[in-house]
Amino acid sequence: MIKVGIIGATGYAGGELARLLLQRDDVEIVWFGSKSYVGQNYGDLYQNVYQFTDGVCQGDDLEELSRMADVIFTATPQGFCASSMNEEILSRTKVIDLSADFRIKDVSVYEEWYKLHHASPQFLEEAVYGLPEINREKIKNARLIANPGCYPTCSFLSVYPLVKEGIIDPTTLIIDAKSGVSGAGRGAKVNNLYCEVNESMKAYGVASHRHTPEIEQQLSLAAGRPVVISFTPHLAPMDRGILVTAYASLAKNLSEEEIRAVYQDYYGSEEFVRVLKPGVCPETRWVKGSNFVDVNIKTDPRTGRVIMMGAMDNMVKGAAGQAIQNMNLMFGLPEDKGLKLVPMFP
Amino acid sequence: MIKVGIIGATGYAGGELARLLLQRDDVEIVWFGSKSYVGQNYGDLYQNVYQFTDGVCQGDDLEELSRMADVIFTATPQGFCASSMNEEILSRTKVIDLSADFRIKDVSVYEEWYKLHHASPQFLEEAVYGLPEINREKIKNARLIANPGCYPTCSFLSVYPLVKEGIIDPTTLIIDAKSGVSGAGRGAKVNNLYCEVNESMKAYGVASHRHTPEIEQQLSLAAGRPVVISFTPHLAPMDRGILVTAYASLAKNLSEEEIRAVYQDYYGSEEFVRVLKPGVCPETRWVKGSNFVDVNIKTDPRTGRVIMMGAMDNMVKGAAGQAIQNMNLMFGLPEDKGLKLVPMFP
Amino acid sequence: MIKVGIIGATGYAGGELARLLLQRDDVEIVWFGSKSYVGQNYGDLYQNVYQFTDGVCQGDDLEELSRMADVIFTATPQGFCASSMNEEILSRTKVIDLSADFRIKDVSVYEEWYKLHHASPQFLEEAVYGLPEINREKIKNARLIANPGCYPTCSFLSVYPLVKEGIIDPTTLIIDAKSGVSGAGRGAKVNNLYCEVNESMKAYGVASHRHTPEIEQQLSLAAGRPVVISFTPHLAPMDRGILVTAYASLAKNLSEEEIRAVYQDYYGSEEFVRVLKPGVCPETRWVKGSNFVDVNIKTDPRTGRVIMMGAMDNMVKGAAGQAIQNMNLMFGLPEDKGLKLVPMFP
Amino acid sequence: MIKVGIIGATGYAGGELARLLLQRDDVEIVWFGSKSYVGQNYGDLYQNVYQFTDGVCQGDDLEELSRMADVIFTATPQGFCASSMNEEILSRTKVIDLSADFRIKDVSVYEEWYKLHHASPQFLEEAVYGLPEINREKIKNARLIANPGCYPTCSFLSVYPLVKEGIIDPTTLIIDAKSGVSGAGRGAKVNNLYCEVNESMKAYGVASHRHTPEIEQQLSLAAGRPVVISFTPHLAPMDRGILVTAYASLAKNLSEEEIRAVYQDYYGSEEFVRVLKPGVCPETRWVKGSNFVDVNIKTDPRTGRVIMMGAMDNMVKGAAGQAIQNMNLMFGLPEDKGLKLVPMFP
Repeated sequence: MIKVGIIGATGYAGGELARLLLQRDDVEIVWFGSKSYVGQNYGDLYQNVYQFTDGVCQGDDLEELSRMADVIFTATPQGFCASSMNEEILSRTKVIDLSADFRIKDVSVYEEWYKLHHASPQFLEEAVYGLPEINREKIKNARLIANPGCYPTCSFLSVYPLVKEGIIDPTTLIIDAKSGVSGAGRGAKVNNLYCEVNESMKAYGVASHRHTPEIEQQLSLAAGRPVVISFTPHLAPMDRGILVTAYASLAKNLSEEEIRAVYQDYYGSEEFVRVLKPGVCPETRWVKGSNFVDVNIKTDPRTGRVIMMGAMDNMVKGAAGQAIQNMNLMFGLPEDKGLKLVPMFP
Repeated sequence: MIKVGIIGATGYAGGELARLLLQRDDVEIVWFGSKSYVGQNYGDLYQNVYQFTDGVCQGDDLEELSRMADVIFTATPQGFCASSMNEEILSRTKVIDLSADFRIKDVSVYEEWYKLHHASPQFLEEAVYGLPEINREKIKNARLIANPGCYPTCSFLSVYPLVKEGIIDPTTLIIDAKSGVSGAGRGAKVNNLYCEVNESMKAYGVASHRHTPEIEQQLSLAAGRPVVISFTPHLAPMDRGILVTAYASLAKNLSEEEIRAVYQDYYGSEEFVRVLKPGVCPETRWVKGSNFVDVNIKTDPRTGRVIMMGAMDNMVKGAAGQAIQNMNLMFGLPEDKGLKLVPMFP
Repeated sequence: MIKVGIIGATGYAGGELARLLLQRDDVEIVWFGSKSYVGQNYGDLYQNVYQFTDGVCQGDDLEELSRMADVIFTATPQGFCASSMNEEILSRTKVIDLSADFRIKDVSVYEEWYKLHHASPQFLEEAVYGLPEINREKIKNARLIANPGCYPTCSFLSVYPLVKEGIIDPTTLIIDAKSGVSGAGRGAKVNNLYCEVNESMKAYGVASHRHTPEIEQQLSLAAGRPVVISFTPHLAPMDRGILVTAYASLAKNLSEEEIRAVYQDYYGSEEFVRVLKPGVCPETRWVKGSNFVDVNIKTDPRTGRVIMMGAMDNMVKGAAGQAIQNMNLMFGLPEDKGLKLVPMFP
Repeated sequence: MIKVGIIGATGYAGGELARLLLQRDDVEIVWFGSKSYVGQNYGDLYQNVYQFTDGVCQGDDLEELSRMADVIFTATPQGFCASSMNEEILSRTKVIDLSADFRIKDVSVYEEWYKLHHASPQFLEEAVYGLPEINREKIKNARLIANPGCYPTCSFLSVYPLVKEGIIDPTTLIIDAKSGVSGAGRGAKVNNLYCEVNESMKAYGVASHRHTPEIEQQLSLAAGRPVVISFTPHLAPMDRGILVTAYASLAKNLSEEEIRAVYQDYYGSEEFVRVLKPGVCPETRWVKGSNFVDVNIKTDPRTGRVIMMGAMDNMVKGAAGQAIQNMNLMFGLPEDKGLKLVPMFP
């Protein structure tokens, strides 16, 4: 039985961790951490898990929790994990951080984009970027995982093979992403009220969103040289889902069929990346509730560009599902344990 | 390995059966029946199950299918199952009918409300109304199950204990129900287009909806005398979910606490009926994707009435999940096999 | 030019007042009152009116405003208007209060249901309940209007003719209402976040909602004797709209045709109440953005009941539109001035 | 009194024409043309206009209608208007075609993208592209207006000043657009059912959408040389609204302030184009129900690109509103007559 603690269990990503882990019989959640609801029954706050657990919300004492848990998920605001981390904690337990604290290797980049002081940069080198499709082996032996952001996961996996193979010119890469509202969290903000978000679309964080350097870091590693991109997130009136539409000029003269073959090479054996059939565009409804990323491409001979598309559930592969995928790898379990979820439609 | 055939696999209830059964390793779907999509790859129509199956849509030949399958689900329009049924089929395989054909014991009532001739009334007596909370033992030995309607399941379970115990006056019972749009099926009708349904509420089938006699039949059995009710369904702008609000005058002078205790008596050991805590109203979001019915009550001393409430996912407990629950019982499996689903929120 | 002041201009009802009044050339908004946004440009907060006004948010000083405005709308939380009201204000200006402060004639009933002390009960007798279909003449000469609640407007108009005529037994009256989320206001509450409300239905305030005594007061006046009802509001995942489904036993043996004729008698000359054709159920989509209430009825000979239905836009006829209808009457203008709005579909 | 005929009155764009025109007292709708509903009362099909008109649906005989109407709106599928047009019709009446038939000047381009034979290319030269912001004077004297497409209107107005002024490199222009579902029309198609579209996002028509050549034609005219672009439309789960996010490399080294000044130069005196304040992103909720296009830009020094954004109601400025704006110009009326609509929020 793996003893699991969740800090930030009352946010949406924390709630999704609970949903997925409470379905498993090899896992026990020993800690529902919360800042605002200490002392309240977790099943009263998330009535979906009513009768699945008797857990009561506790605080966010990472130190204490590290003595009880085999693995800790921190689904917390930026800054919390970095400021709470120390060698003792990591010597006792594994940590999977769903915040951005350990994703950006260059601390100055982190501090510039997040407007935060990083309290424990000494763990940046050790932290493994928890994208199994790229870092599977490193994850298996990691103590500290930087679980990727939602936009970066979908954006990166949608374009990665073509950047890695030099098939597109990365200086022309533009990523236009659309997200459901759960990505904005469960905080009480006017901007996320039903009537503010429903029946509307908007761009936000234009040319300034904090997931930009994370995507660029991973693309730079793939390209073998610095990559700077345009990234624009949009808010869409739906609960879950991220859709990425990416544009780039082809650097090599390949046909659509040849390009799809490259995706097949990269993802053919990946359980959670589905390369769709020719002509089929990814749609978020087909991945809802699952750990899949659906990807596909379309070439445009008129412009010499390729359009790369990806769809994903931001709560699962974009957060809790990927975190559990990482946990599985770290504990030597089948990578898909508890994640063989058929997407729910409608 | 249980060999399963689905007739009507390309409708929403059929799709939900596929979603739930493809997650199981003790079940094999041997037939994806469809009227409109014969020859097409099922995973192309329901991209959520892309790569979960290579199945190709076949027709609706119940006869042929009965030679291949251990159990057949008919998620078909009214009339199909009755007109295709015969003793040979039932001697070879079990049938779980998700249509209304075998729910109403009185064939004249069926023919009046459904405006259809019933082609095989000889099986009405044998058919077991597949509501496990009431008919668990009969289901175990049945060859033919009449899987309950979505509204009747939620309506009946919400009021059953109080009717059975004579705590309410059944002549005063009024059931006001609200359903998501998936209940209307996947047919191409203007009335179910996004822009017709979105941002709107309406009542329909007022004083004439075909689920009325089904609810009345079960309530009459519970009350031991004929019960006639008002039942009004409404369409709500959401994919899934049924919410029932029922009103009746109290026939016995019980407190809210005493009434809730009655519900606990009836449902305390039922895995799929959750009696909520005092003061908590059922909400469809808390049962989405699961086989639960959440119920609760509120007394109103000012009017002498009790308000009974229930929330359920119409696709799961209201259709496919309940059908699988019945299948589990018929095959001697744990009743919750493949159904221990934590509701998905948000 | 009518000089108008709005207290509570940054809430949804206040915003709707601004939307409707900024389209008129005989009205000038001289005060955008707000508690939270003083000093901010109103068009920055409600970008729909960007470039329609240069107004800057001011406070909620009713005294000062009363020296500037010909009429003041108070779209404020309960208690504000009663605690700010005095004879001097009313001697200088007309007041249309969209809160509940002056709706309930019996101060003890108000204080019991609203859990508030009423600070100026001396104006209760003078205040006119601003439902033009009932109190048109009184409204014309009023200084202080109690603008009806959203649920009460739709509930009352849906059942009024049958109560007034003694055609239904009011002791059997049950009102089941469904509202869009804008009715919950623009406050930053977790419960009204997009992901909490979307894809869900729930009842709330069961047997305890504060609009109950307001409905009962008006029905009692119509019936000529005390009427006590069951009233259950529900939250539906849509921005606007209230749908009422009401049930009662017939006290007189009238046909559906005869009952519809009664509605025609009552509402045939009312511009803002539309009696639908036989068999057509009201839907909120057909009244969106307009000042209409659509009503219709269906008899149920099986139960001896009649089902009464009404649909309305809670922001317009349920709040701002009705308030402007009252203003028009008070200023001797055509009652429909600025309100001849064709509902917006889809 | 202007006598108006609408062919295609029962589609969404036709319905929006009716909504807007029935609010006017200088217009009379003399013909509600429909293919599927001939003989039915228009107010029964669009219950929002119940009691606004007694009109009964007639067929699509342009010839006959041209003898009755001062102006005809054809809100019909591609091909209808071109195949029905002749000199006699145009000599008797004005025609505003909401389809694409007369938008593309090069008949071979039309026939390639629309896969249709053009039946009356002789009117292509005469037809005026009905975008008042560009062709105001020509529109005033036109007999035949090609009313712009929804995507082209929003796309073009969002980027026009920078293309015209040579501030961006048009070869780098990428337009990523998101539309509500009303743009897909009122036809009964499975793909547009509520449950197929709700809670999902997808791209469609990637590198092949038929609005591409229309946008390119207008941009080429603006640039003074052929412009080829990437254009990707997406379907968003909402009724109305188009959001455009466009990307291009700067060709001139201008600051964000200087670029916004260019937009002010172009649109400062345009009533229906609102240039938003610095840092404010357009959102479709702020234009709903109105004839506005809200635009703004953001520069990205890191990539040397500018991001251009626009939001519009596809039913109004994207279809019926713009058509009426054209009608006003053709009849010498104030351009904004009947269009001074404050956007409806929420």
